[in-house]
Amino acid sequence: MSEEKPVSSEDKPRKVVIICSKGTLDMAYPGLILANAARMVGIDAMVFFTFWGMDIITKKKMDKLKVATVGNPSMGIPTFIGSIPGMSALASSMMKKEMEKLELPSVPELVEILDASGAELYACQMAMDMFKLTRDDLVPEIKDVLDAMEFWEKAEGAQIVFV
Amino acid sequence: MSEEKPVSSEDKPRKVVIICSKGTLDMAYPGLILANAARMVGIDAMVFFTFWGMDIITKKKMDKLKVATVGNPSMGIPTFIGSIPGMSALASSMMKKEMEKLELPSVPELVEILDASGAELYACQMAMDMFKLTRDDLVPEIKDVLDAMEFWEKAEGAQIVFV
Amino acid sequence: MSEEKPVSSEDKPRKVVIICSKGTLDMAYPGLILANAARMVGIDAMVFFTFWGMDIITKKKMDKLKVATVGNPSMGIPTFIGSIPGMSALASSMMKKEMEKLELPSVPELVEILDASGAELYACQMAMDMFKLTRDDLVPEIKDVLDAMEFWEKAEGAQIVFV
Repeated sequence: MSEEKPVSSEDKPRKVVIICSKGTLDMAYPGLILANAARMVGIDAMVFFTFWGMDIITKKKMDKLKVATVGNPSMGIPTFIGSIPGMSALASSMMKKEMEKLELPSVPELVEILDASGAELYACQMAMDMFKLTRDDLVPEIKDVLDAMEFWEKAEGAQIVFV
Repeated sequence: MSEEKPVSSEDKPRKVVIICSKGTLDMAYPGLILANAARMVGIDAMVFFTFWGMDIITKKKMDKLKVATVGNPSMGIPTFIGSIPGMSALASSMMKKEMEKLELPSVPELVEILDASGAELYACQMAMDMFKLTRDDLVPEIKDVLDAMEFWEKAEGAQIVFV
Repeated sequence: MSEEKPVSSEDKPRKVVIICSKGTLDMAYPGLILANAARMVGIDAMVFFTFWGMDIITKKKMDKLKVATVGNPSMGIPTFIGSIPGMSALASSMMKKEMEKLELPSVPELVEILDASGAELYACQMAMDMFKLTRDDLVPEIKDVLDAMEFWEKAEGAQIVFV
């Protein structure tokens, strides 16, 4: 192609943007795994953590994510049992054991792996304000804090997955 | 480029489509804020309300959206406390106060702002039928009611975010 | 256009990828209906089932999907009532009746229709491992089982909707 021509969309590297908005163990995985798989096949990946998804990158919370035992009929646990104190912790530890059997990294490990693989991890400014979080509360793998307008600028041309 | 050539993707204005499918206070915000931020950086924005997201544009409900105090471990409220009548209303009013402190518009205000900014707001035909809603139940900012096929036609070329 | 030129993005058929990650009745519909509507307007459609969304294509579960009566304030059911054993089954059967009145196909019917319409249905390898599912547990309409890297390869160029 001639030099004067603007670069066509085919020439830009493929890019995916994952928005992690949930803080449950079961919904942390799909986003992190999709981002990691994208990197493994050579696709640029950016992960934007917002709302409850801030838990995934908050030092004090990231290794304590839980599955909800109520409000999710797919768990197969009746609400009156799911409501018993300790049930969520129990179900979460069971799910973690399943993940280990499958040799899946833990959530904190996945965040580290993502960073090492070249994925760019960002936190949402508004969510930080809302939950009164500072950069010190977050893992060092977070490259920057973005507001929603900066988010759109960085997300240009990407396939977006809102988890 | 020559006139006969079809317009390339580079020449089309950038467009985002937000699908709002949830009716909770916490999940109403991410979609509305992303749409608003898109408009602020000059990106075309369309918002499609469906399923529980209809609450966001239903006159009688939009100012009464609540956060779930059960089924979301990120709230940090044990289920047996979250189940107490009134807890969801209490948590919702607390979140609204946080939002006000951050000078964030309320949900009804955000819908108005979006419309004024040039975002196009649409309601889902099937959801209207399912919840027996009429156009009079919805805010006047809704430009039209679309079925799923019309949705895809309008969403062509857009980055899609399903909230 | 000349033969030497690489095919431009305008020449590729439009494609959508729906990721179904939830197993509730209310969240099964949006993904299946969007995929079906895409096919009806001639757009290529692929549906990837993962996590709780595996229930939608699991023979023993697909006709028993339930709505959550707790954890979703949009349902308008107080948690202490939504927790009563049988409430989720009751609400689910009410929603199914509404769907029938609207002449909407059931979830198993929608899966069949999608397959017949040419949509490609895939299951997630990791979710199968996690929930200990075999191909025999899944409906025959599932074309293949993909890992997350294969998912990205197949999703190239598509508009992605994560439900």
